[in-house]
Amino acid sequence: MSSILVVGSVALDSVKTPSGESREALGGSAVYFSLAARLFSQVHLVGVVGKDFPQQHKLCLKNRGIDIDGLEVLPGKTFRWSGAYGRNLNSAKTLETKLNVFETFRPKLSASHKSVPVAFLANIDPELQWDVLSQMSRPAIVACDTMNFWISLKKAALKELLSRVDVFFVNEEEARKLSGEPNNFRAAKRLSQWGPSVIVIKKGEHGAMLWANNKLYAFPAYPLEDVADPTGAGDSFAGGFLGYLASSGALDGPLDPARLKRAMLYGTVLASFNVEDFSTRRLERLEHPEVHGRFRDFVNLLAVEDMVAA
Amino acid sequence: MSSILVVGSVALDSVKTPSGESREALGGSAVYFSLAARLFSQVHLVGVVGKDFPQQHKLCLKNRGIDIDGLEVLPGKTFRWSGAYGRNLNSAKTLETKLNVFETFRPKLSASHKSVPVAFLANIDPELQWDVLSQMSRPAIVACDTMNFWISLKKAALKELLSRVDVFFVNEEEARKLSGEPNNFRAAKRLSQWGPSVIVIKKGEHGAMLWANNKLYAFPAYPLEDVADPTGAGDSFAGGFLGYLASSGALDGPLDPARLKRAMLYGTVLASFNVEDFSTRRLERLEHPEVHGRFRDFVNLLAVEDMVAA
Repeated sequence: MSSILVVGSVALDSVKTPSGESREALGGSAVYFSLAARLFSQVHLVGVVGKDFPQQHKLCLKNRGIDIDGLEVLPGKTFRWSGAYGRNLNSAKTLETKLNVFETFRPKLSASHKSVPVAFLANIDPELQWDVLSQMSRPAIVACDTMNFWISLKKAALKELLSRVDVFFVNEEEARKLSGEPNNFRAAKRLSQWGPSVIVIKKGEHGAMLWANNKLYAFPAYPLEDVADPTGAGDSFAGGFLGYLASSGALDGPLDPARLKRAMLYGTVLASFNVEDFSTRRLERLEHPEVHGRFRDFVNLLAVEDMVAA
Repeated sequence: MSSILVVGSVALDSVKTPSGESREALGGSAVYFSLAARLFSQVHLVGVVGKDFPQQHKLCLKNRGIDIDGLEVLPGKTFRWSGAYGRNLNSAKTLETKLNVFETFRPKLSASHKSVPVAFLANIDPELQWDVLSQMSRPAIVACDTMNFWISLKKAALKELLSRVDVFFVNEEEARKLSGEPNNFRAAKRLSQWGPSVIVIKKGEHGAMLWANNKLYAFPAYPLEDVADPTGAGDSFAGGFLGYLASSGALDGPLDPARLKRAMLYGTVLASFNVEDFSTRRLERLEHPEVHGRFRDFVNLLAVEDMVAA
């Protein structure tokens, strides 16, 4: 089992959805990722919070085996985000973003963190993602996420970063915008030419696609009767995906599509648990048997006997 | 192998997409359905055209084994539809609809058509769908489609029809509108309470969902690098789905989920071929080995080994 380093935001989120709301609850990309990935691998979280960050949140991460030695505490306030979802839960309306201490975040890796073999660079400025990567000694798998904001503002830096990335997680709108291609198939193909041998296109409630080995695989979302809060679904997907990869065998050399497909299903399963409750509540109380049970159920849902028609 | 009766539109379509255009080409729900279903089963088409309907189109259907004895020819012009698709191919903008002879279409089944065991009532007035169904002696499987227009205008008649339907094909927006439920899971569950034991929710490029046995199954679309013309995808899906069901065993009694899942994949495969070229061109030249080859490929794309993480 290999360990994973994640660099990203640690936040206090206030979220409203048709099912209810949460206020100043634990959130941030690095947190969602860590709480998902810790079910598979040792996770090292690198981020920053203000002096107002509740001790209980630190304990919540620590008690679940997540290394938070890389969580800096700076004078000032923790990053805050508030958003609202309408009846169609597929996209949030941001009500307020207060970067606070996150605005000047400049991650410095410790000696031991530099040699972690798997890195997830969550959605932050691509120049910072590059900077983190440059501090690492020789990661076997580098994965990253991004967002529209950076595609508009720092496309060149993002493209440069991608040349050093193995697994790129991206929304379908972002994939089309970044690649300039009209559909997911062509977008994935194009983006993979820029560096990442594996592209994961996230489609929210419509599932996710995997570009690997010059082929596009598509998977639906795990069907749920109720979704409480979609916040963090993308990061918990990445956590399940990379957590599984890091725990399931060799990291050097090309990744076998069969293993990547299992990673897609674990990503989907972790995202499906995440959205069942507000904030990180569901991920916090998630245990291995539930994860593997839903994975098995999902494998069976998708399985079709190859019995050809007469 | 059982035979299928389809009642729906036969049209001359003019379509523009980013890849090109077609003018006054063969189209209509009954045509797309028949050209897909004929690869599995004997199909009987019931519809109406005007005296201007090209002989070559009749031959096109006849030469592929489709029974067009039920295709009435009336004085006047054939139904015409024209539409355009933007770069996002998921929905057409209707430019013009001229119902012509289709406006007063009142299908009368022949004696032999009345006893066909599988019926597909394509998207027409739910009162006409009911009327057709009432002429049939005792179909084992009744399937239907509908559209927003009828949901707004004739919801009561549609609900009454559904009480006699086994398989209901519906778009996701239509499913939510008709059921009043906020998501596909709840919409399918609700609609199945109105009669159909099987609900197929169509999501275009995002695939399709199957409600059967009180469970929701989700499948992606077959990944394609290029889509020429999405017209008829829903009807060719229904043709592949019902064609396979009619050809694959007993029709009485509850349908086994494993068989329904194969039907979903055949539906997806037929729709994927259909959109590769304009009008019905791809379906016209489609042959069994291609269909089964893509079915196998799709089964493999989706297959994930149940190897649980450490």
